[in-house]
Amino acid sequence: MIATFHPTARDNSSQARCGVVTTAHGPVATPIFMPVGTRGSVKALSPHELRDHGAQIILGNTYHLYLQPGHELLARRGGLHRFMGWDGPILTDSGGFQVFSLIYGGIADEVKGRRPQHPARLNDMVKVTEDAVIFKSYLDGSRHIFTPERSIQVQHGIGADIIVCFDELPPFRAGYAYTAESMARTHRWAARCLAAHRDRDPASLPNPDQRLFGIVHGGVFADLRRASAEQISSMGFDGLCIGGSLGAEKAQMYDVVAMTVPYLPDDLPRHLLGVGDVDDLFESVARGIDMFDCVSPTRLGRHGTALVRDPNRRWKVNVLNAALREDDAPLQAGCPCYTCRHYSRAYIHYLYRAKELFGIRLVSLHNVAFLLSLMAEIRTAIGEGRFAALYADWLGKPLYV
Amino acid sequence: MIATFHPTARDNSSQARCGVVTTAHGPVATPIFMPVGTRGSVKALSPHELRDHGAQIILGNTYHLYLQPGHELLARRGGLHRFMGWDGPILTDSGGFQVFSLIYGGIADEVKGRRPQHPARLNDMVKVTEDAVIFKSYLDGSRHIFTPERSIQVQHGIGADIIVCFDELPPFRAGYAYTAESMARTHRWAARCLAAHRDRDPASLPNPDQRLFGIVHGGVFADLRRASAEQISSMGFDGLCIGGSLGAEKAQMYDVVAMTVPYLPDDLPRHLLGVGDVDDLFESVARGIDMFDCVSPTRLGRHGTALVRDPNRRWKVNVLNAALREDDAPLQAGCPCYTCRHYSRAYIHYLYRAKELFGIRLVSLHNVAFLLSLMAEIRTAIGEGRFAALYADWLGKPLYV
Repeated sequence: MIATFHPTARDNSSQARCGVVTTAHGPVATPIFMPVGTRGSVKALSPHELRDHGAQIILGNTYHLYLQPGHELLARRGGLHRFMGWDGPILTDSGGFQVFSLIYGGIADEVKGRRPQHPARLNDMVKVTEDAVIFKSYLDGSRHIFTPERSIQVQHGIGADIIVCFDELPPFRAGYAYTAESMARTHRWAARCLAAHRDRDPASLPNPDQRLFGIVHGGVFADLRRASAEQISSMGFDGLCIGGSLGAEKAQMYDVVAMTVPYLPDDLPRHLLGVGDVDDLFESVARGIDMFDCVSPTRLGRHGTALVRDPNRRWKVNVLNAALREDDAPLQAGCPCYTCRHYSRAYIHYLYRAKELFGIRLVSLHNVAFLLSLMAEIRTAIGEGRFAALYADWLGKPLYV
Repeated sequence: MIATFHPTARDNSSQARCGVVTTAHGPVATPIFMPVGTRGSVKALSPHELRDHGAQIILGNTYHLYLQPGHELLARRGGLHRFMGWDGPILTDSGGFQVFSLIYGGIADEVKGRRPQHPARLNDMVKVTEDAVIFKSYLDGSRHIFTPERSIQVQHGIGADIIVCFDELPPFRAGYAYTAESMARTHRWAARCLAAHRDRDPASLPNPDQRLFGIVHGGVFADLRRASAEQISSMGFDGLCIGGSLGAEKAQMYDVVAMTVPYLPDDLPRHLLGVGDVDDLFESVARGIDMFDCVSPTRLGRHGTALVRDPNRRWKVNVLNAALREDDAPLQAGCPCYTCRHYSRAYIHYLYRAKELFGIRLVSLHNVAFLLSLMAEIRTAIGEGRFAALYADWLGKPLYV
């Protein structure tokens, strides 16, 4: 087997590092942000635009693709790459997060502790046993069962280059006992995922050379995170994700990363699931994370928020703000993206006011390009030994890890 | 003044002709279809995609642009070309059609006789006097007045290369007397538009070299069409539009064109407003029309209808049709558009099922490219003396004008 990850540069002031992840659809230079194409499309954007703006790898969601159009159809059509016209690397998550997410109505809020549990509704929509998760479709209420084996088989049909173990996502307020119990089950599921992956018949699959990543749990508890990191790292995965509850606020998330990464091997890539804020990217890279994904750039785009290089605005501008009405400047001065090369804030403001689809397209593209470009800056800075300076420049404060 | 139109080729079997329309933003080879960017955006498409797929000129709607973002803002921002990032020719209509359209809730149906009049609602929303049309905004109900002079001033602010006289649009069932009365008023308004245009201060405008087209009315009545054609042709316009009621069905529309074109001068371009069906384009070109515009390719795209080269399907396929679910073929075999070069019917079918925005973008682009490519085929065929053969090939019947 080809080694999945090669470190190429290290930062002196932090755990930040550069590397290359090898995949069946080409190499990926890390640290990397991957745009999310939940349902086989990075919303409103073309694969060619993504490529032209520096996207190296995109993420698809197993849960959504399983329900529609279905992994069997995707396999018959030659896999997701061919179906959606993206010939670069793809990662699929396991479906675990989404099974819970669409039931809570926003697992991100739940995981991050921003809303109370809804145990009654949860029990109605999803049931967790030692063997499986039984859930209802968000599309039509139909009943589905995901086992670890089933998740891996579905991901085999989709054909992404990197696939991920199936996990349970305990609520933020689950407490130590349930988090430990759930983690242990996720570890048992990891072994089943690995076995299911090793048992596949590569010749029958759209992508015979898929890599399987394990997923580290343990919530906000340092001893559980260490135990999970050590356990999952020892099992022979091609890479590692940090999943589960990341705490109620950003500082706690950075702590979770810091209490996990030291127990991960140096020669495997580390993916922090679902993170994409500018400060979170810097803080997590500084703590040794290599890979990120988040729906935020396209979701923000649909809601009229553009990313800008301004920590005082939390890197965000609402394009509906009346101050942009006659502003001839691009969304971000100096941004080389298609949107900023050709369109003014005034035009984009108008497109959102007029509810013209093209506005969503332009801001989504800018936001994705913004994060891709930021990650390229981070890679260059690490390579040139000035990550701490870049951090200070972007965040307006010194790097302290 | 530079002559606006130069005929370059003529068909032997019909009135079809090729020519070049000169504008401040470059020449336009006719016969031509212009995609419609009602509100400063050809819905879901970029100016670069339009250009790459052969768009020579696009149309903007004065009524919409007047209400939002406003012609004064557009003038301050350097005109519509600069605002929307399209550096090719633009034509704006006068606002007349739209003032009535948005009140009827679909003037196209009314003009084409497909629905009864609603005189009570009409009187509440719009009032026509000798001097002006008073109407309420579809956005907020606010009251606005368009005079011929005002329409031209608004179009000066927008800065299109070709602007159009303000007209009244009488209902299809108006009858001979009202149609004649309305036509006479539109003629008086034409003189006022011409005067307002000649009185402008070009140096103060975003586009100093705008051409003004007259608009021929007369409904479905041959003597009125002839009278209007002769009157408007004599007034010194740079081109001529055929407007007003075009009859209840396609055959009547072709008759209206045939009863009008013989009374138009050979050296001015002829624009048939709001027409874009494949058969209508062929029949109208055969009767001497040079220019077309229609929202249909993007509107059809938003509703999941793709244009195809099949007269038995009326050139349309519903992409939601289950037969496309696993169809690896492009929307149209051999189509060189971006959509057909990269995506299958199966993927597009799925995108519409999943309500992904990218589907609208792909089908809208294909539909626009389809009509642009059809018009290029028509131009080549006229130039090579085989327009009748192309007509027979596309429509499955011999050309008979």
